[in-house]
Amino acid sequence: MTYCLGLRCQEGLVFLSDSRTSAGVDNITTHPKMRVYERAGDRVLCLLSSGNLSITQSVTALIERDRERAEADPTLPHLLNQHNLYETVRYVGQLIREVHRMDASALQQGNINFNINLILGGQIGHQEPQIYQIYPQGNAIHASRETPFLQIGELKYGKPILDRGFHHETPLAEAVKYGLLSLDATAKSNVSVGTPFELFCYRKDELAATMRRKFQENDPYLTTVRERWQSGLIQLVHDIPVLDCLIP
Amino acid sequence: MTYCLGLRCQEGLVFLSDSRTSAGVDNITTHPKMRVYERAGDRVLCLLSSGNLSITQSVTALIERDRERAEADPTLPHLLNQHNLYETVRYVGQLIREVHRMDASALQQGNINFNINLILGGQIGHQEPQIYQIYPQGNAIHASRETPFLQIGELKYGKPILDRGFHHETPLAEAVKYGLLSLDATAKSNVSVGTPFELFCYRKDELAATMRRKFQENDPYLTTVRERWQSGLIQLVHDIPVLDCLIP
Repeated sequence: MTYCLGLRCQEGLVFLSDSRTSAGVDNITTHPKMRVYERAGDRVLCLLSSGNLSITQSVTALIERDRERAEADPTLPHLLNQHNLYETVRYVGQLIREVHRMDASALQQGNINFNINLILGGQIGHQEPQIYQIYPQGNAIHASRETPFLQIGELKYGKPILDRGFHHETPLAEAVKYGLLSLDATAKSNVSVGTPFELFCYRKDELAATMRRKFQENDPYLTTVRERWQSGLIQLVHDIPVLDCLIP
Repeated sequence: MTYCLGLRCQEGLVFLSDSRTSAGVDNITTHPKMRVYERAGDRVLCLLSSGNLSITQSVTALIERDRERAEADPTLPHLLNQHNLYETVRYVGQLIREVHRMDASALQQGNINFNINLILGGQIGHQEPQIYQIYPQGNAIHASRETPFLQIGELKYGKPILDRGFHHETPLAEAVKYGLLSLDATAKSNVSVGTPFELFCYRKDELAATMRRKFQENDPYLTTVRERWQSGLIQLVHDIPVLDCLIP
């Protein structure tokens, strides 16, 4: 399983992913699910993937194919020469459809769903930063001020903390903490989601990928976040008044 | 959808349920999913139900049928004359199988799963209090010191807070707060789970049902729990140190 998360706030964007891939409990491996594409000063994109690993790897292989082709002929469409994020998202949607044409009927014969969900976000020039979720059919939705985060994969465990605390106005430094807590809650409740966690934090108008981090299981910052959260949570519940019928 | 929860701790048991039933988003109604059966001084049982409403209502109708039959002939088996909780659970499992024989094939013809999950717990005499989960097939598992809670229905949203804070040694008064927060997290993240919430709290060896409460949406205690949790959570996240690369 997988859990990936994109947060959109006034100051910028936060992307997070776990790195665990399972094809049954006896076949759990580590694969990065985050890819950052950068053309410094012009655009920064981050792609998060969940679903069938062969489908997501096929899509990224097609992204690379198109970038190589464009080196010979720069007029050809590729990931980093679209006019805006919406067109970039539509371009990736077309690649999903291309993989669908190649693989879907063969997968179906093996009773395997054509399962891929992507989060693609970033900033192009000084257009507004945005995050999109792209579906297996190649269509997409974007986040909004009212719904400022998008999740793919095993999303339920990590949703309550975002619903309670994260808003479009949340500062970027706080958004990173909410994202890590959301991811860690998922990893704690579902063994198929696990470290290393990858983080990419993008500050609006920076147009460069400067804040990227990988957290191993024993990462000191991740350990601090976990310990402070767990002990603080128990204290917080303790401080809530006791229900009347249980007062001694 | 439904969310029901049973917590087992040293001092006793806590049962919680929401009351929303949905057959599609345009057909949302309120049905109690908690039933408390009491023979004061002898035994107390609490039954929580999730799944197809007609199946759960059939099971409780059979429980009533057997209790009426036993009024004429007290040697007949019924819910409140089993030797221990395990046998009580097996008895209810047999009733599920009886409904299965009546309805499963007709349901299957309409492509409807035979979907029922129950939590049954309580205390008989001075035996150890316990909670069980009963599956659609009529078999069951019980909670343990290591896994001290059982959930049925929409269980993922409400699991992280229990995984972080609730243990077998948690005092009963704290367990009620964890249960309410778990239920409220689910209701906030999934519109098909909602108030009124029902609570039954059982203190070990009491052998009477004295602490039962229903929380409407605007219940003052529920409001206090929510407000303290939400504001405390935001403060708690704020107090976690900022990741180094984001320190101004």
